[in-house]
Amino acid sequence: MLKDFERKKREDKETLSAEIKELELKLLGQQQLLRDAGLPVVVLIEGWAAAGKGSLIKELISEIDPRFYNVVSPVVLPESEERYPFLYQYDKAIPENGKITFLDSGWMENVVRKFLRHEITKDEYRRRMRQVNEFERQLRDGGYLLLKIFLHISKDEQFERLRTLAEAPETEWRVTREDLWQHKEYKRFTEAYDEFMEKTGDTISWHILDGSRRKTAVRDSFKLLVQKIDQGLQDGRYVGEPFEEEFPLKEMQKLADVDLSPSIEDEEYKKELKKLQIRLSELHNIIYRKKIPVILCYEGWDAAGKGGNIRRVAYPLDPRGFDVHPIASPLPNERNKHYLWRFWTRLPRTGHIAIFDRTWYGRVMVERLEGFCSEKDWKRAYNEINEFERMLTDWGAVVLKFWIHIDPDVQLARFTERENTPEKQWKITEEDWRNREKWDDYEIVVNEMLQKTSTKNAPWYIIESNDKKYARIRTLKIIIKALEKACERHFRQMMD
Amino acid sequence: MLKDFERKKREDKETLSAEIKELELKLLGQQQLLRDAGLPVVVLIEGWAAAGKGSLIKELISEIDPRFYNVVSPVVLPESEERYPFLYQYDKAIPENGKITFLDSGWMENVVRKFLRHEITKDEYRRRMRQVNEFERQLRDGGYLLLKIFLHISKDEQFERLRTLAEAPETEWRVTREDLWQHKEYKRFTEAYDEFMEKTGDTISWHILDGSRRKTAVRDSFKLLVQKIDQGLQDGRYVGEPFEEEFPLKEMQKLADVDLSPSIEDEEYKKELKKLQIRLSELHNIIYRKKIPVILCYEGWDAAGKGGNIRRVAYPLDPRGFDVHPIASPLPNERNKHYLWRFWTRLPRTGHIAIFDRTWYGRVMVERLEGFCSEKDWKRAYNEINEFERMLTDWGAVVLKFWIHIDPDVQLARFTERENTPEKQWKITEEDWRNREKWDDYEIVVNEMLQKTSTKNAPWYIIESNDKKYARIRTLKIIIKALEKACERHFRQMMD
Repeated sequence: MLKDFERKKREDKETLSAEIKELELKLLGQQQLLRDAGLPVVVLIEGWAAAGKGSLIKELISEIDPRFYNVVSPVVLPESEERYPFLYQYDKAIPENGKITFLDSGWMENVVRKFLRHEITKDEYRRRMRQVNEFERQLRDGGYLLLKIFLHISKDEQFERLRTLAEAPETEWRVTREDLWQHKEYKRFTEAYDEFMEKTGDTISWHILDGSRRKTAVRDSFKLLVQKIDQGLQDGRYVGEPFEEEFPLKEMQKLADVDLSPSIEDEEYKKELKKLQIRLSELHNIIYRKKIPVILCYEGWDAAGKGGNIRRVAYPLDPRGFDVHPIASPLPNERNKHYLWRFWTRLPRTGHIAIFDRTWYGRVMVERLEGFCSEKDWKRAYNEINEFERMLTDWGAVVLKFWIHIDPDVQLARFTERENTPEKQWKITEEDWRNREKWDDYEIVVNEMLQKTSTKNAPWYIIESNDKKYARIRTLKIIIKALEKACERHFRQMMD
Repeated sequence: MLKDFERKKREDKETLSAEIKELELKLLGQQQLLRDAGLPVVVLIEGWAAAGKGSLIKELISEIDPRFYNVVSPVVLPESEERYPFLYQYDKAIPENGKITFLDSGWMENVVRKFLRHEITKDEYRRRMRQVNEFERQLRDGGYLLLKIFLHISKDEQFERLRTLAEAPETEWRVTREDLWQHKEYKRFTEAYDEFMEKTGDTISWHILDGSRRKTAVRDSFKLLVQKIDQGLQDGRYVGEPFEEEFPLKEMQKLADVDLSPSIEDEEYKKELKKLQIRLSELHNIIYRKKIPVILCYEGWDAAGKGGNIRRVAYPLDPRGFDVHPIASPLPNERNKHYLWRFWTRLPRTGHIAIFDRTWYGRVMVERLEGFCSEKDWKRAYNEINEFERMLTDWGAVVLKFWIHIDPDVQLARFTERENTPEKQWKITEEDWRNREKWDDYEIVVNEMLQKTSTKNAPWYIIESNDKKYARIRTLKIIIKALEKACERHFRQMMD
């Protein structure tokens, strides 16, 4: 009897090895198809300390060409990443089309740990789960294949594994205080993991694998990955359906109804400008110390005066505490990733100001009109952008969006002046003239954008810029008011 | 008399303002020319605490279009940057062609402070000055315009400024402990600054400006910058002359003389591979704890077996502690920067391993043969690369370079096999066949590369790879030996 049992066990092990070998070869073959199809894959491996996440990943990548994958582990993340929204580190790590990113624990471990350590409140914990759901859905809707695995071991098994590691001199250092703490808090972790998986399993489901049976877990992970990719290759790149979530919106004027006549006298302009710049400079100091991040978004007609407006806002700021991000059409490596990636990676650190000269709204304007993305893509984008900005304001950021507005006659006058002034000629291109021809189309999409994305937390402001000086003063005033409010809010929270 | 004096003073001030205005306009006009000429500019502003570096930069950028410049301040650098070579943070920050980077203090302040705080030895201090000289020369030779300004104030002046800042509640926080320490150590700082400028002024000269006369300093900085750019525009992009520094070299065989017959039996291969991988895994743990960075460079003929070799080396490594960098032709944003930039930014952190699948040696092989750079460029590169690698090994890195070698017949056989095996077809392209035709040309340039860049500190190894298995075993053995030596050296240094 026992002999038979032993034989059976040996055979099972051999079968497992053979299965793994076969799946490895399959994955090897998929590599190229994945690349041809341009499908990006994210494999998230979560689980208990000492459950074998690292060695599982080691097996999964063992046959893959290094050009096709990337492994990201939280241990190597610098502390300064703490000064960004918590998803920043994962946003940054997503693969480009045709490649695979393996995460050796990720957003789940991050959120659960912070919660159990009481570093974030219950409210913040819930918000982060919602953000995770939004992030995963946005990736999926953007054509990413996501696989989420949880590697489970029992408390006793974890005890034995940690003990084995701790007792051997060459592995002792691998057992961290964090691991021991987790073991002590095994029960609370179990509940938190359970809750997290329950609340984040609707869009992309979780797969719980038994970490105590190492080879089986490897085989099953391979199987899940190979299936996921097969399915993806068969169905083709997924394009998410647009859907609308209710966001509290600010009512917006139609562009055609905007009175563009306001102007300002030169004398008053100079006086006001100086006064407002001094005030902005003071506020920059305060938000720097209070660590409030600020994001200023500029969009507007060509020659509306965005550049000059930005310069007047930037002038009083300490150059150590702000960045201006001019956004042109995406570079090849940017185009190969989720459309929000190049903005995720340009967020300011807490206490810093990021000024975007054109923004993520390109998606629902130029990309929509020029057909650079599908109809579903730009329709979905309103909601995705509202979610993105809510994530920013939930994080504590001040987000202000300016539409620098002029009428077609003023644009024509400025274009002509640019063409006739040698130092300004570089500012005017053929494309500007082409865009001008599409003024009416743009007006439609801009109006729709303003209606759908002027949320209470991240509102749009239409800035009348037929008189550029008036526009600068008005923008400065809006920024100052918003920063003053943010400082007050910050103070109130401290008092709570 | 006094009235006259006052009048004169007022007039001087007005003249200064007018001069600044004029220079500002000139700089504004240069922007576009700079962009057209594709000239990158680095402006380094060093100087005493409270000398006004920040506000000087604020003036310099006030009229420049934000698309054209970037300000970098050390205060915002995350602590984790400490785990890279000290120039890493500045390497990363260089502008692309046509743009300006302003550094609000940089490598000088960094090195001097570390030295005065006794965080680095006198030897390391000297090495860093040499590295700064090499870095500046490499930038200049690569067509960068460099301007170095030191903003000077006397001890009394610094005292007054710090006091003014410290006494006003809204600026009190700006005075850091570091600043107070500098003030206390004013004399030692003076000597150190002096020495640093003396030792780093030959290639790119220093300009000392009087920080106590704010407006004059602004005017003079503008003037220097405008002149620098004017000169650059007039002369056209500078291409540095090649020159040879003596590096201790390891003697290298000519490729034609290499005996490619060595091979290994399958049985022995499996046994050896397992044994070596276990050992490498152990060593990875050790270097991780000792924080020794490792850089493995792979070059070789197409189809020589680089990929499989890399996989066998990577397999036993903890995925959390290594990265594989496949190097293809540079992306547009990479091509717009110094050719070493994409390698500077891919260096491993201490304790990590970076494996480069193709490397910076593209400069003296494909770029040379295809004419992607000028003759001066690739001739200069041997020396620049030796300097770069010396910087790495001085930092404590293990740098190993493998030329994976086969003969043309074996390559033909492998190409043919790839073409006839569906899963491998993606690995063979038209370009591979074209490169094959140039075998003899490549052999010449590879031989020259091996002769000129196999330094004692970062040697080349020609790996016989007609038998891929033999090649893998040999590579693993070389890596293991080098890591063992590095661990021993590390231990010896600890004993010193």
